[in-house]
Amino acid sequence: MNILGRHILAEIYDCDAEKIMVESALEAGAEIREVAFHKFSPQGVSGVVVISESHLAIHTWPELNYAAVDVFTCGDAVNPWDACNYLTEKFKAKNMTATEVKRGIFEEPVKVVNL
Amino acid sequence: MNILGRHILAEIYDCDAEKIMVESALEAGAEIREVAFHKFSPQGVSGVVVISESHLAIHTWPELNYAAVDVFTCGDAVNPWDACNYLTEKFKAKNMTATEVKRGIFEEPVKVVNL
Repeated sequence: MNILGRHILAEIYDCDAEKIMVESALEAGAEIREVAFHKFSPQGVSGVVVISESHLAIHTWPELNYAAVDVFTCGDAVNPWDACNYLTEKFKAKNMTATEVKRGIFEEPVKVVNL
Repeated sequence: MNILGRHILAEIYDCDAEKIMVESALEAGAEIREVAFHKFSPQGVSGVVVISESHLAIHTWPELNYAAVDVFTCGDAVNPWDACNYLTEKFKAKNMTATEVKRGIFEEPVKVVNL
C-alpha cells in the first residue's frame, strides 16, 4: 500500500484568538504558494494556505473558542504534526483532538512528479 | 451531541482533468468568499475555494489520474455531497471513495453567529 498524503483534522477547543496559519506552515518547513483568508462579521475567520505539499485550512468560531484546522501534506519532507502542534501551542488551546487520515492510497507503488 | 460541520474527504481516481471547483461550490448553493489556486510544473494543481460555509479544496496528480478533494460545509443550508457528487461527475471519475467526518462536536447545544 502506498500513500500520497497525510491529512490531519484537528478540533481545537478553548483557543483564545485567530493566529496566522502561514507561520505554522513555515514552522513545518512547507513552501507557501497561495494564501486566502476571509474575515466574517461580526467575528470568525476562514482561511487557507496552499503549500507545495498540499494545504492548511482553518475556520474559527470565537464565540465557541473553537477552531477546525486541517493540515494536509504530501511527501516526506514536511511533517503535518509539526504545523498542527505549533498551531495548538500558539492558540494556547487547552483542549485539542486530532485525527490523521491517509490520502491517496494506491495498491501499487506510484511515481509522482511533484514530490 | 451538536455538530458544527460536515467534512467530506473524497479520493477521486481515474478522473480525466482538473475542473473548476467554483462551479461545484455554486452547484451546492455555497457562497464564495475567496479562491486560491496554484498550478504546478509540469502538471498538477492545488486549489481552495473559501466559502461562507467553510471550504472546498483539491489537489490533483494527473499522472495518477487522482485527485484528493475536501468539501467542508457548516450549517444546514448547503449539502456537501451536492458539491462532491457534482465534482465526481464533472471529473468523469470512474472510481471515487469518500468519507464524511463530523467537525466541531459539542455536548451541549451551541449558538453560533455566522450560520
